[in-house]
Amino acid sequence: MWCTCPVRPLRPPRATRRFLAEPVADDDLERILDAGRWAGSARNRQPWRFVVFRDAGLRGELARLGAYAQHLASAPLVIGLAVDEDSGSDAHFDVGRAAQALMSAAGALGYGTCPATLFPEANVNRAGRLAGAHPPWRMRWAIAVGRAAPPLPPRRGRPAIATGRLPRDAVVREAGWPRS
Amino acid sequence: MWCTCPVRPLRPPRATRRFLAEPVADDDLERILDAGRWAGSARNRQPWRFVVFRDAGLRGELARLGAYAQHLASAPLVIGLAVDEDSGSDAHFDVGRAAQALMSAAGALGYGTCPATLFPEANVNRAGRLAGAHPPWRMRWAIAVGRAAPPLPPRRGRPAIATGRLPRDAVVREAGWPRS
Repeated sequence: MWCTCPVRPLRPPRATRRFLAEPVADDDLERILDAGRWAGSARNRQPWRFVVFRDAGLRGELARLGAYAQHLASAPLVIGLAVDEDSGSDAHFDVGRAAQALMSAAGALGYGTCPATLFPEANVNRAGRLAGAHPPWRMRWAIAVGRAAPPLPPRRGRPAIATGRLPRDAVVREAGWPRS
Repeated sequence: MWCTCPVRPLRPPRATRRFLAEPVADDDLERILDAGRWAGSARNRQPWRFVVFRDAGLRGELARLGAYAQHLASAPLVIGLAVDEDSGSDAHFDVGRAAQALMSAAGALGYGTCPATLFPEANVNRAGRLAGAHPPWRMRWAIAVGRAAPPLPPRRGRPAIATGRLPRDAVVREAGWPRS
């Protein structure tokens, strides 16, 4: 028995960068956060904390803390991801797992998402102050969540953003073949 | 419209550490790998490569390259995850996203999965040699994939592995409240 749901393909959801104003329903948010909370982690360390930003002013500040973070201002809700950088070498990998679990659940509930990286370090510090996060917790990423707005028509003269993927043969190899 | 499929809950799949011998079907593997390949990454860098290990001898070697990697030997198939460590500070986070996308797709197709961390560095080097991966590619993780075997009955005198999660209030906070 497996999932054949037509609204939830096996491939992960594509990024959504334009959002409607419609808020994220509280019970949906709870389910989205629970999906992240139940992600696996090395030795079950759960090296993540999730910070919910609803306030437009705070989201606007976050949106200035990364070079590609503008969409944090226009989404109705942002989930900041804080990582415990004292928890070992798997911390970023594990927070990536939680992020993907959050975004997958949001997609299954009909929401679009797009993560942003907060950088450089001064901006990570600033984001931590906005979130009330103290070391070893570092808020390095934030995820915009909301209902997707219709895509804009392509603008003349502006190249489309490269959103494809490397071909399968470039990404996957079989082990155990003769190695040169 | 959203996914209400009973076999694919919003929460991410739990780890499977015991497997049946039944092989992973080739077309299922292709769909699982494609789910990882279509994960998002910072600036679409795709800092991952997936190495498929079917050979029992190679899987047995991998299973000795981490303190908690034994399940790599008993699964019918292992996907090694190589990360481009020259690709920037989001590399581990992004490979975590791809890992979770792979495991979510595998779960939707009825397979169990469990990642393992390969360490210390000498073992990462050894795994790279098994995979044919050269720097900057480092094979730091591997995911066991297969049909789940029935769980063993709890053994008297052996404490159950802690598999719960921190309570919601410990993991989630609202931003914008007065900070002390």
